[in-house]
Amino acid sequence: MASARRIKGVLSPVVTPFKADCSPDAERFIKQCKWLISQNVGLACFGTNSEANSLSVAERIELLDALVAAGVDPERMMPGTGCCALSDSVTLTAHAVKLGCAGALMLPPFYYKGVSDEGLFRNFSEVVQRVGDSRLRIYLYHIPPVSQVSITLPLIERLIKTYPDTVVGIKDSSGDWNNTKAVLDNFAKTGFSVFPGSETFLLAGMRNGGSGCISATANVNPAAIARLHGEWQNADADARQEALNRVRSTFAKYPMIPALKAAVAHYAGDPAWTTVRPPLVELDAGQRTKLIDDLSAIDFVMPGLKSPK
Amino acid sequence: MASARRIKGVLSPVVTPFKADCSPDAERFIKQCKWLISQNVGLACFGTNSEANSLSVAERIELLDALVAAGVDPERMMPGTGCCALSDSVTLTAHAVKLGCAGALMLPPFYYKGVSDEGLFRNFSEVVQRVGDSRLRIYLYHIPPVSQVSITLPLIERLIKTYPDTVVGIKDSSGDWNNTKAVLDNFAKTGFSVFPGSETFLLAGMRNGGSGCISATANVNPAAIARLHGEWQNADADARQEALNRVRSTFAKYPMIPALKAAVAHYAGDPAWTTVRPPLVELDAGQRTKLIDDLSAIDFVMPGLKSPK
Repeated sequence: MASARRIKGVLSPVVTPFKADCSPDAERFIKQCKWLISQNVGLACFGTNSEANSLSVAERIELLDALVAAGVDPERMMPGTGCCALSDSVTLTAHAVKLGCAGALMLPPFYYKGVSDEGLFRNFSEVVQRVGDSRLRIYLYHIPPVSQVSITLPLIERLIKTYPDTVVGIKDSSGDWNNTKAVLDNFAKTGFSVFPGSETFLLAGMRNGGSGCISATANVNPAAIARLHGEWQNADADARQEALNRVRSTFAKYPMIPALKAAVAHYAGDPAWTTVRPPLVELDAGQRTKLIDDLSAIDFVMPGLKSPK
Repeated sequence: MASARRIKGVLSPVVTPFKADCSPDAERFIKQCKWLISQNVGLACFGTNSEANSLSVAERIELLDALVAAGVDPERMMPGTGCCALSDSVTLTAHAVKLGCAGALMLPPFYYKGVSDEGLFRNFSEVVQRVGDSRLRIYLYHIPPVSQVSITLPLIERLIKTYPDTVVGIKDSSGDWNNTKAVLDNFAKTGFSVFPGSETFLLAGMRNGGSGCISATANVNPAAIARLHGEWQNADADARQEALNRVRSTFAKYPMIPALKAAVAHYAGDPAWTTVRPPLVELDAGQRTKLIDDLSAIDFVMPGLKSPK
């Protein structure tokens, strides 16, 4: 398996800012992405927490183009490109590769339920063949609580065997450490990159051959999560993991995406950030106050966050 | 509530033919739609059984344009236009209205799970307002076994109250007669059109104020289903319902979409119809033989089916 161009570390499924009319706000998006990189965190833009599945393919392409045009390094990008429609997945993945993105994070097609590993294999296989670019690096996206469609161990094995230079990693957002451990045990030794979908499993992942994590709360607590990734072999690693868990569990008391946006809005002093697209609903005033109080109680800060007024 | 332009009767979520490279086959699609109309069945094209969610918005628009250009009456059409992304739903719904389609069948956004009625209300509300065309007639699409996102009774009530001339009906594919009965009891009297998502509930639906049905098996057994809709008050209605159930339960022994396509392929003498898009997988040769044997055993025929060689 090729080891070049492999993404490691901590990535954020970047929350997507919207204007008042719910159209994507490229200016705020670019500033947020630059801030995240300054905090040593890569960009898994268009993840679940990015409300990516509430964006059209054209809207995602426009944001990605704007990001690259603004000078953000595509080597730090692993955009989500897996859609329900094979044609959409091919369009978006090919565009990401053309822009030089280091990887593509791919959901399985998620409308039809109870589909077979054979059908999912054909989906990923068709994407690889139709994109037809040796630079393509696919990171599978396993998030059964939301997608309701699983990426099983036998499917991973078949994809790695068939496309060893292309299917190079996975984000495991099952929330089930036993599954993450099984993926690590089966595939990490051969160079397959495993990213738990939450920093809750960052330290355990690193101790078992993981590559980092891709986590919602990397939107708001990036530097501390990235520091544990860099210093996971230090003596204070367990204490750092516990500190990360306190922040995570505070956000987890609220609907995650609206809570992340409320925090960015508060710490950046920029209320426009609270806007979400339907079917999501923003936190109400009471929830926002409670969230910020909860975060203050654990001395949480978002350092150096700047957004346009 | 406006009663004009209301769709009634039996509609088919038309199976979508693909070429060998999995691109949509407009020629076969048009012929199939014309055949369905000749069998007295309307066109709920781009439903679940159409593999609609495996098609991009552009592919759906292209097929719909081809259908209208071929002279198929848009008054017989209720295309599926509900997508995960609000922007996609608006684009597709506006296009259907522009073409003169009698209705739009709208899934809720189905990626995010556990969303609130408020969030779903905002989604449908934004579609109505952004399309901004008094000709729009929305039929809500409740199919929790697949979408995993429900359209609840309170949500229906709020939508009807807010948009009485626009939100005019529902397809209930819950498979749960108690839910269909509750929708009928609560809303049918005020003119709301209720279509069970299977002909299994056609007679029971008609006896409780229903408007017809929208059913997968209307792709293969259209005339007989349409006849029960027309003659549901006749003395032989229960016997006709039982005959429909025998066909339905035969197909239900197989993965539904590949089985429908295998039947069309067989009775039209046109093997190209067996092609499905990933993540679905076509029936294997053994399953196809068994399906046709099962159908022969109940004297099933598809009359007058013609497809291009």
